[in-house]
Amino acid sequence: MKKRIHPADIADILRNLPSDKRKPFFDSLDSEVGAKVLRQLDPVLEFDLLKKLDSSVISEILDEMPSDDATDVVAGLSKEKAGQVLKLMAKEDSARIQNLLKYDSKTAGGIMTTDFVALNAEINAEQAIHLLRQRVKPGPIHYVYVVDNEQRLLGVLMLKKLLVSEPDIRLKDIMNEDIVSVKTSLDQEEVARLVSKYDLLAIPVVDEQNYLIGVVTVDDIIDVLKEEATEDIFKLGGTDDEELSKKSIFNVSRIRLPWLIVTLFEGVICATVIRFFQFTLERTIALAFFIPVIMGMGGNIGIQSSTIVVRGLATGRISLSQIGKVLFKEIRVGLIMGLVCGSVVALIAYLLEKTLLLGAVVGISMFIAIIVAATMGSLIPLIFKRLKIDPAVASGPFITSSNDIVGILIYFSLANLLFRIAG
Amino acid sequence: MKKRIHPADIADILRNLPSDKRKPFFDSLDSEVGAKVLRQLDPVLEFDLLKKLDSSVISEILDEMPSDDATDVVAGLSKEKAGQVLKLMAKEDSARIQNLLKYDSKTAGGIMTTDFVALNAEINAEQAIHLLRQRVKPGPIHYVYVVDNEQRLLGVLMLKKLLVSEPDIRLKDIMNEDIVSVKTSLDQEEVARLVSKYDLLAIPVVDEQNYLIGVVTVDDIIDVLKEEATEDIFKLGGTDDEELSKKSIFNVSRIRLPWLIVTLFEGVICATVIRFFQFTLERTIALAFFIPVIMGMGGNIGIQSSTIVVRGLATGRISLSQIGKVLFKEIRVGLIMGLVCGSVVALIAYLLEKTLLLGAVVGISMFIAIIVAATMGSLIPLIFKRLKIDPAVASGPFITSSNDIVGILIYFSLANLLFRIAG
Repeated sequence: MKKRIHPADIADILRNLPSDKRKPFFDSLDSEVGAKVLRQLDPVLEFDLLKKLDSSVISEILDEMPSDDATDVVAGLSKEKAGQVLKLMAKEDSARIQNLLKYDSKTAGGIMTTDFVALNAEINAEQAIHLLRQRVKPGPIHYVYVVDNEQRLLGVLMLKKLLVSEPDIRLKDIMNEDIVSVKTSLDQEEVARLVSKYDLLAIPVVDEQNYLIGVVTVDDIIDVLKEEATEDIFKLGGTDDEELSKKSIFNVSRIRLPWLIVTLFEGVICATVIRFFQFTLERTIALAFFIPVIMGMGGNIGIQSSTIVVRGLATGRISLSQIGKVLFKEIRVGLIMGLVCGSVVALIAYLLEKTLLLGAVVGISMFIAIIVAATMGSLIPLIFKRLKIDPAVASGPFITSSNDIVGILIYFSLANLLFRIAG
Repeated sequence: MKKRIHPADIADILRNLPSDKRKPFFDSLDSEVGAKVLRQLDPVLEFDLLKKLDSSVISEILDEMPSDDATDVVAGLSKEKAGQVLKLMAKEDSARIQNLLKYDSKTAGGIMTTDFVALNAEINAEQAIHLLRQRVKPGPIHYVYVVDNEQRLLGVLMLKKLLVSEPDIRLKDIMNEDIVSVKTSLDQEEVARLVSKYDLLAIPVVDEQNYLIGVVTVDDIIDVLKEEATEDIFKLGGTDDEELSKKSIFNVSRIRLPWLIVTLFEGVICATVIRFFQFTLERTIALAFFIPVIMGMGGNIGIQSSTIVVRGLATGRISLSQIGKVLFKEIRVGLIMGLVCGSVVALIAYLLEKTLLLGAVVGISMFIAIIVAATMGSLIPLIFKRLKIDPAVASGPFITSSNDIVGILIYFSLANLLFRIAG
């Protein structure tokens, strides 16, 4: 059924071309299509391409873009090139972009567009429709915003409402005053939460005096959600989605190394713990065999519990008022899993080494380590949340590290104790 | 600026009430507001509440809901109660819901609504506006779909376009024929990808003969994205978002245990590997001290590499054609991190035990283990992807487990070898 190729599909084609073929291909597009294609590209590819394009070509493309996307492009250019491009653009457009550049890119101000429809509350439906007919900007009208003479936000109208209203009724009499708006500095994640909560197609952005200065549309919200999901997952691995845009392996290593160094020092602490119990270990060398399983299980349980809690906090299913309930549940789940896994591993240890005592040490310490891991895995994100630190950062390496150390400590302390009792 | 309380905010209030206060509070709402509040609740809370409500109350509420949400509610009721509720509803509405119940809840058919605007291609703009004026359904009109006499999908129109067109122009002459539609059976994740790719406010759902039978709107797409992000994160931890709706700790344990059992057997394999090198270990008991650090680093590196690859595959930044490039980059990053971490740990081992040989064994085996972990961490998700298995499933416990075993094997083999050479 398609007659033309959609820009998103052209972007797909471009993506699959070898990198030296991309510029000539892009140059063959007219600037309107080029603008749409560029918006669909992955940031890495986009800036790769922009680097190769002439300032005059870029400025033509920017003329065809919504102001939020144009701002993102300019923000990614080198200072020199950005200056050239802005100079080549129409004064009004370049002023608008320079204004948008002021906002942090991860806030409402950073993702809003200044292309929106705002009409005066005093005009009537017929006049409103007449004004909309003169509007040439492409793209859908998500909502019609209603403002006073000073551009202060008063209400919102669905286009449909305008269509079905009597021609002489004034906008202020049909507008919906229950309007949710955000300030420019609001974090994009919070903006996304509001749009999702109230099922909106767009949310207006106002300044401190309630002047309407922009709109965040739902397609940008979808991008935010995808970005934040990626970020959360990366945090679990102790890395960062910025790394995808880093070409140099040294930069990538620099992002990943901090967590590794933390893990390394955790390993060194484990080493000194085991060293402390050296004589216990020398008496029963088989204790060493089960170090990995004690560590592995604790780590896994901790990650499961923390995943549930971190995600529950992020989606709002768990609130801080439920700390006790969540913790109690995780501990009981830990109890069951500790019983099952502890028994299995005790049996295996006994079968391997044929000593009941070793089986008991391995089984009981795994049982305790699992309950402790479940407790820490759920408690640490809750504590981080209360301290207003993002719990997603805590959940990965940090919990695994603490569980490893505690697990080893439990294992060798118990071995030392039981072997002493057994004489 | 708010005059009334938004249903989403009422849902917040309800969520924070003690569970026995929720039914009386909900009963105090009228059914129109009740329907909106119910849609905003978390599924767990929603079905908790529905269980307590009378069938007659539920049927009244369903009358006020879009068909997709009503279907979700009925799908969650017990068979008996669902039958009662459907009987109490208007015939047409209940038939519509029974029809929607046929579709898998995670497909386009399962998330689509049947409340959409479809107009005949032959009518003109004035007639279209006249028809829209008679439509009483609340909620925004995302797009006007244009169909032929048999309800086959021909094109799409923005409401704005209708507004600015000449009254006597026919819809077929102003509609956009470049329309992206989906089949009922398409997976919801794929539907979300298309809506996001083409920046749509809604996507039409058609059957095999291209008859328009429903529409998936962008607010449902946002829910899908949130759901899928949660799912991906849970898979990393070897658990499942279903567990949040499970009350019984036995059910939760049943979801989590499979991965733990896998981890447990991986631990047992590690135990037998170390046991195999028992004599090497007896000669140099200090080898046991560094088991945790070798394991921990391999695990961490593997997770970092796999996170990058899994997420890259999910977001489309990495394609299967780039396997070689991705792998080569991860290996080089592994090389750098192996050098840094290997040197640090070698130095620490030497300082702790004052033997150069042990330092060399620990440092070199960590270096090798890190490179292997980076390789496996990036390769395994790519292989899973090629085998058409969801790479997110692979990435967590599976990669950690294999890296643990391989790490231990490298460590003790190298120790055995170097100690032999050193005599």
